[in-house]
Amino acid sequence: MTRPLPFDVAPWSLGLSGFDEHGLAHRESVFSLSNGHLGWRGNPDEGDPHRTPGSYLNGFFERHPMPYAEDGYGYPDAGQSVINVPDGKILRLFVDDEPFDIRHGRVIRHEQRLDFRAGTLTREIEWTSPAGRTVEIVSTRLVSLTHRSVAAVRYEVRAGDGPCAITVQSEIVANEPLTEVHPDPRVKEALAAPLESLGDHLLGTRATLVHVTRRSRLGVAVAMDHVVRCTGGPPVIATETSADLARTTIRADLNEGDRLDIVKVVGHEWSDSPSATELRDRADAAVIEALGIGWDELVAAQRAYLDEYWACADVLIEGEPRLQQAVRFALFHVCQAAARLESRSIPGKGLTGAGYQGHTFWDSETFVLPVLTSTAPASAAQALRWRHATLGHARERATQLGLKGAVFAWRTIDGQESSGYWPASMIAFHLGADIAAAVRGYVRATGDEEFEREAGLEILVETARMWVSLGRWDDAGLFHIDGVTGPDEYSAMTDDNTYTNLSAKANLEGAVDAALRHPDVSEALGVSADEIDDWRRTAEGMTIPFNERLGVHEPSAGFTSRELWDFASSAPDRYPLQEHFPYFDLYRKQVIKQADLVLALYTAHEAFTQEEKARAFTYCEALTVRDSSLSAGVQSVIAAEVGQLELAADYLAEAATLDLDDLQGDTADGLHIASLASLWTAITAGIGGMRHGVSGLRFAPRLPAQLSRVSFGIRIGGRTLHLDITPETTLYRLTSGPELGIEHFGRELVLRPGAETTAANPPAAAPGPRPAQPASRAPRPFSTAFAP
Amino acid sequence: MTRPLPFDVAPWSLGLSGFDEHGLAHRESVFSLSNGHLGWRGNPDEGDPHRTPGSYLNGFFERHPMPYAEDGYGYPDAGQSVINVPDGKILRLFVDDEPFDIRHGRVIRHEQRLDFRAGTLTREIEWTSPAGRTVEIVSTRLVSLTHRSVAAVRYEVRAGDGPCAITVQSEIVANEPLTEVHPDPRVKEALAAPLESLGDHLLGTRATLVHVTRRSRLGVAVAMDHVVRCTGGPPVIATETSADLARTTIRADLNEGDRLDIVKVVGHEWSDSPSATELRDRADAAVIEALGIGWDELVAAQRAYLDEYWACADVLIEGEPRLQQAVRFALFHVCQAAARLESRSIPGKGLTGAGYQGHTFWDSETFVLPVLTSTAPASAAQALRWRHATLGHARERATQLGLKGAVFAWRTIDGQESSGYWPASMIAFHLGADIAAAVRGYVRATGDEEFEREAGLEILVETARMWVSLGRWDDAGLFHIDGVTGPDEYSAMTDDNTYTNLSAKANLEGAVDAALRHPDVSEALGVSADEIDDWRRTAEGMTIPFNERLGVHEPSAGFTSRELWDFASSAPDRYPLQEHFPYFDLYRKQVIKQADLVLALYTAHEAFTQEEKARAFTYCEALTVRDSSLSAGVQSVIAAEVGQLELAADYLAEAATLDLDDLQGDTADGLHIASLASLWTAITAGIGGMRHGVSGLRFAPRLPAQLSRVSFGIRIGGRTLHLDITPETTLYRLTSGPELGIEHFGRELVLRPGAETTAANPPAAAPGPRPAQPASRAPRPFSTAFAP
Repeated sequence: MTRPLPFDVAPWSLGLSGFDEHGLAHRESVFSLSNGHLGWRGNPDEGDPHRTPGSYLNGFFERHPMPYAEDGYGYPDAGQSVINVPDGKILRLFVDDEPFDIRHGRVIRHEQRLDFRAGTLTREIEWTSPAGRTVEIVSTRLVSLTHRSVAAVRYEVRAGDGPCAITVQSEIVANEPLTEVHPDPRVKEALAAPLESLGDHLLGTRATLVHVTRRSRLGVAVAMDHVVRCTGGPPVIATETSADLARTTIRADLNEGDRLDIVKVVGHEWSDSPSATELRDRADAAVIEALGIGWDELVAAQRAYLDEYWACADVLIEGEPRLQQAVRFALFHVCQAAARLESRSIPGKGLTGAGYQGHTFWDSETFVLPVLTSTAPASAAQALRWRHATLGHARERATQLGLKGAVFAWRTIDGQESSGYWPASMIAFHLGADIAAAVRGYVRATGDEEFEREAGLEILVETARMWVSLGRWDDAGLFHIDGVTGPDEYSAMTDDNTYTNLSAKANLEGAVDAALRHPDVSEALGVSADEIDDWRRTAEGMTIPFNERLGVHEPSAGFTSRELWDFASSAPDRYPLQEHFPYFDLYRKQVIKQADLVLALYTAHEAFTQEEKARAFTYCEALTVRDSSLSAGVQSVIAAEVGQLELAADYLAEAATLDLDDLQGDTADGLHIASLASLWTAITAGIGGMRHGVSGLRFAPRLPAQLSRVSFGIRIGGRTLHLDITPETTLYRLTSGPELGIEHFGRELVLRPGAETTAANPPAAAPGPRPAQPASRAPRPFSTAFAP
Repeated sequence: MTRPLPFDVAPWSLGLSGFDEHGLAHRESVFSLSNGHLGWRGNPDEGDPHRTPGSYLNGFFERHPMPYAEDGYGYPDAGQSVINVPDGKILRLFVDDEPFDIRHGRVIRHEQRLDFRAGTLTREIEWTSPAGRTVEIVSTRLVSLTHRSVAAVRYEVRAGDGPCAITVQSEIVANEPLTEVHPDPRVKEALAAPLESLGDHLLGTRATLVHVTRRSRLGVAVAMDHVVRCTGGPPVIATETSADLARTTIRADLNEGDRLDIVKVVGHEWSDSPSATELRDRADAAVIEALGIGWDELVAAQRAYLDEYWACADVLIEGEPRLQQAVRFALFHVCQAAARLESRSIPGKGLTGAGYQGHTFWDSETFVLPVLTSTAPASAAQALRWRHATLGHARERATQLGLKGAVFAWRTIDGQESSGYWPASMIAFHLGADIAAAVRGYVRATGDEEFEREAGLEILVETARMWVSLGRWDDAGLFHIDGVTGPDEYSAMTDDNTYTNLSAKANLEGAVDAALRHPDVSEALGVSADEIDDWRRTAEGMTIPFNERLGVHEPSAGFTSRELWDFASSAPDRYPLQEHFPYFDLYRKQVIKQADLVLALYTAHEAFTQEEKARAFTYCEALTVRDSSLSAGVQSVIAAEVGQLELAADYLAEAATLDLDDLQGDTADGLHIASLASLWTAITAGIGGMRHGVSGLRFAPRLPAQLSRVSFGIRIGGRTLHLDITPETTLYRLTSGPELGIEHFGRELVLRPGAETTAANPPAAAPGPRPAQPASRAPRPFSTAFAP
């Protein structure tokens, strides 16, 4: 953990005063704006100082060679990396021809603020130039949640003293040099200046650059135009373009108190069938449209979009203002990652950085989509439609691996596999079931039959086929899935991974159910009655390894018999373990990187008794080192379920501070979107005890001692349900949709639209002994995590 | 299998008539000359046509980056590849200024012959130039078995008709372009022109080039001089040098029947502390010395060396002349690979090609050294001293992997690990036991106490320490070695690999025994009585997995419960399987690439009853696809032991023809030295039934039906023992050394020096049913393999 940035504490925003270069990249990630289609990192308007000048379009990437010391069958031969599109964020400022730079002159005031309701990033600066001239700058930036290709900046400069000449260079810059480069020279070469100009255009005051990537042949156009007002002398405006630069120069003479007010609108378009003129025209149209709407309306639309989002998604926390802020920060970024997805994926880092090369992983379906399904289901549908669109690649991959059905890409941008280490990717087949689970969760929550018929069922069918072909029957009539890697990346090539097998079982059952409900569609997919029967039998025969002697479920067959990892000898600076120990030693011993069996306790909660959950959790806690950001949220959920509320609160705090405090030291590369999403799960499923079961929706709310009230909403079957939890009671309120039956601590409640139902929370049983973690790997206590 | 080259059949040589470009690289490998220090591939003297212009010095390599798509802890960051030293083979010929090229003009006769007793490669050519001039060329090439840095060529040209002008350019060429390049551009760049000139020298008629490798900083000097005689006009000789080329041009006018006779002597020296002048001087000295000795003496010394070798090593075969030839071909190349090793290793391909990047593997100790130990023990000692010299690297590697003792490099040239795929290398810990076994075998056969005290014991101690730290004790008091890869590369990360565990057990027992015999040395190595006791306990506690239900040993724990590979669906063109199926699917199923448990049946023969051997062999045969060249020889041994003589003969034929018929299609990259060596093992341990046991040396000779007589010799404890096997009897003859007790079919015989002892071979029991191999993977029948 690096020295944290000193954020202020506010319920609906995140602010930071002052500026130094420490934590620069962390700051850039945290202050990212995005709408799921377009992302701008929180770089200063003036461009410098910066670490990573991120401007991303979802799905826009460059291809590059994949290097192997020894090649193997099925290894992908091409990699994919997200790259910067031409950067329209830049507004360089000159005061009396001195460049404004936060590192020179005197900064009287510098405040940056991300507003979760306004959807804007503002900066307020008061600065005296080295020559002694003082200016005030107010910049407001937005990436539009309502106009997917539009970002805009309002940049106001006020002369703080005597007359001065203000010059602003507003730019679009292509092929900006990167500070961090890939160690492999082939990849470095491919990504160094990946954009080839297809033309630069100037029409009136509007400038447009059109490019195509050298290898992946994706076209991109970025256009900009400006509205300039000045209370001082009339501004002089000139625009020029070249292949990799469009620049509008605005010059004005200001007296004390005068203001130069620039609104910059930037439009972005990309396409995989690049017609340069069409792209240019589309980017131009976006700019023209946004200029027509005007700044004030863009800002208003932004707020209206978020008002609608927060109406259901907001989580109210009383008792710890920093947690309140962290939860909204998390939900704001989850919203941003998916708002205008439009059949693209949610990368591990959203559009907040180039970490993991911009790839999308299983965490999208497993950790992010459940949150979106309950709060912004249209976004979840878009992400699932993207997966569905990659079925062609997934079928090819299955064939290549000798399997039936579909094997979706473990890490990818366009749906083609681009993983470089097969034991942690090629055989992480659980991804198929994770996607299927997201499909079923979405359909259950929305009743979106059109989606199910057009996309969902086909995913279920093709993944079910994969499972049948992947596993084998033993002589005793049990179905086994051998040689796979589950969520825990410190085990690989295991047999009968419990999470995988339970997920596959649910996948198969879901396919049976959906195929029977849509016989016409399943027939068109070639599903026979025999095949459905096969899925049912396979689900029923699934092996779930259990150690009878210890009375505990096994993460995978034989896991509990492995040698124990020598935690006593693993000093705190030897974490993450994978950077200090060889894989084989991690793989063959009892050590767990991240929730795996514990994740199954949540996702397949009906497969375990309460007693089994408590035992499995205690067993896993002693072995889990949380070297993955995907762990704390789920551990919080299960800790709460087994009555370990103090531990649940500690894990909640860890999930809440992972990016804000940069706990893993890699938030510089982008935010951990799945971890942010898991905070919502920790609250709703942990504190709220929410589970979707065969008998419907269940709650068992329990507040940790530090909190006096937690309130949240979810969308379910066309309804919006709100919970308001205090230590003694839970208030249920159905704000829209028809009557709903739920369970509150096992007791059935029928909730009527508009009515409020208050139910008492039964007294909690005294918790058993707190489960122990490996030496040095206990979470920070809640109180320490949120210490001022 | 590509179209085989039409070799003639001769008892003591391998000849090939005619020339076409088909099989060019195969021909180059087969006709390689080497002395273990210096290797020249069988390229034509004139340079072209060629595929791989190989000139190698053992241990001389270039370093290059190792590319990884995803890096991991413990991955080597630098690779090593054998590279060509400046090539002194070349003698280009011009007839009336027309270049001699086998592809132009008319070839009346072209014969190439490798002579196993002379140790020479000869070519006899009669050629008519496009202009109609006929010449006869006789070239004789040798790589001296007595002067390690010397190669020499006698090149005679005779004018076949009217007067003609003959020009010969005799050259040393550095940085020759390679036809085959590495796919990774970083490696390609490193290996493209790896030699940097440190100077070129001309002193009298002697030319010398000195170079250093760009990255590994190894210096090399190659010098040449000539003796020229001509029965025609006086030859005109001129020598010139530049950085990468030394050239002596010899021109003479010949009338019909005149001869130009050139003897070229080339000296080679390399060093890892390159002083350019010292290297030059050493190379010059080698040339001066060899010229002083003269061609006839070089040839005579070559033959004398081989006479001495063959005196013990020769294997006489009656009944199949092609097998007779193949066995001598194999033993000739094994001799060549090791004759002048001088503390260097025996690479997988010897010095016959750049396959496997010139790396040395476990097959050196497991397959080659046992043959050398019994036939040329001084060479075996050199190879083991090389391993001992790499102990520093091996200790560092052990520490890096969290282990005690030493972990030797799985693939290497200089002793540093340079494997790129960890599941098949980092965890193939059996290598340590293989080296220890070679040490014990060598000491047993030679009684070389000096070696044992200086090198052998330290290897045993450090490998024993590794095993103790690698494994674990279970509650039942059994010792397990988890997460390792045995010899079979179609399984990885297995627990309790039987071959590994039995080898480790023998390693530990050997360490105990040797440490007790040399208490002073072991004390100096820090070995305590407790440690010795720990080794003994660990050996005793070793787990050997056995499937009670099937009554068969398991290749590794749980192997027999895996899903069966679907051989029926694996068409013949899907082999080798690793090129058509993903590793994970091979790893999780019952399919065996190469002898693994079957190898243990041989190397740890006393751990199994005859009944257990027969069951294990039959079990493994049904699953073994022999995608490795290391398999057939050992399978032949065990087939013979379990009474399957017909199958043993078929595998013998496969081992015999692997390189001659290019069965794997990769002999172009160099000969499979370990496979060639395994042919000797198939004869001595298979047909001869030879085993070294705790009670001494045992034989149980059985001729397959195709052979009427097999005779071979071995060195054992300062003696030379010869066996002469006919269907009915075995004649034992001790030609040197003291009295020896052996077992013949369980009956003790005391052999006296000089005396002949004839023992009857008891009638063989009728064999059980012939074990089946997977579909399409049965070996070619003996008769087909040796069909004319």
